[in-house]
Amino acid sequence: MGAAFFVRMEVVVRRAEARDVPRMLELVKELAAFERAPDEVTVTGQHMLEAGFGDHPVWVGWVAEVEGAIQGMAVCYERYSTWKGRRLYLEDIIVTDAARGKRIGEKLFLECARYAVGQNYSGMLWQVLDWNVDAIRFYDRFGASYSKEWLNGSLELDQLKNLAAL
Amino acid sequence: MGAAFFVRMEVVVRRAEARDVPRMLELVKELAAFERAPDEVTVTGQHMLEAGFGDHPVWVGWVAEVEGAIQGMAVCYERYSTWKGRRLYLEDIIVTDAARGKRIGEKLFLECARYAVGQNYSGMLWQVLDWNVDAIRFYDRFGASYSKEWLNGSLELDQLKNLAAL
Repeated sequence: MGAAFFVRMEVVVRRAEARDVPRMLELVKELAAFERAPDEVTVTGQHMLEAGFGDHPVWVGWVAEVEGAIQGMAVCYERYSTWKGRRLYLEDIIVTDAARGKRIGEKLFLECARYAVGQNYSGMLWQVLDWNVDAIRFYDRFGASYSKEWLNGSLELDQLKNLAAL
Repeated sequence: MGAAFFVRMEVVVRRAEARDVPRMLELVKELAAFERAPDEVTVTGQHMLEAGFGDHPVWVGWVAEVEGAIQGMAVCYERYSTWKGRRLYLEDIIVTDAARGKRIGEKLFLECARYAVGQNYSGMLWQVLDWNVDAIRFYDRFGASYSKEWLNGSLELDQLKNLAAL
């Protein structure tokens, strides 16, 4: 009679801390490259640090560690829907390419769901690129609903400054 | 030589106060009906009041008064983009149907732009229904950019509670 051994890599999900920001920004840039927009990441580590851990933090985050190394993250913030009230917006959920297949994304997503329930939010929402079929399949497993008829509009700071002068 | 008189209706835009919430919620419902989703407004006046003026306010708003009556409003909140940092999200900008054509929407929109500049945000963003050509034409006048390839995904509280128990 033999003994069967297998090594299970433990995934630890915990709230992000200030010291995690440099690695988190690396993951943000990895996702932006995948989303065909690598040059769109203009935020600095210092800004991200201040926005998460300064006097008026706007985001909360979680990191997933495997053997002490951060392989995934989620960043959320509170939004206000005039229809539904306070809700959680999942800005980014990222698992580094080399660490796929370990259900890290699922653990992060469930942690966000638990947070939303704990905060008494009315729901959780996010955006996904319409061609990102793997991500859509991931969200589908949780029973997600989608709406497709909304366009994202935006103005950048230089445009706003011109308008503000009117 | 005669004298020409004309009456100019003055539009006053000011920051929303707690006492404005009941009228603001009326306008929210008017917009939801126009957007073919009248039953989607489940937020109560009490919740909206708390979310704007309680201990941890999430939204800021402006109202437009014509002869002392509120005919328009804008509601915004701060968001965090992992690409662009702190930004202003324009959740709703509404002018009641009977008060169109007085450039009330423009005044509200410019007020939001000024606020975003004053807060040192990197930009302002919003969503618009792809069939709402009048709204798109309105935003176009300010030089807005659009992206069309993002889907909105969501989970409601009852679904989140089921996931949180996993």
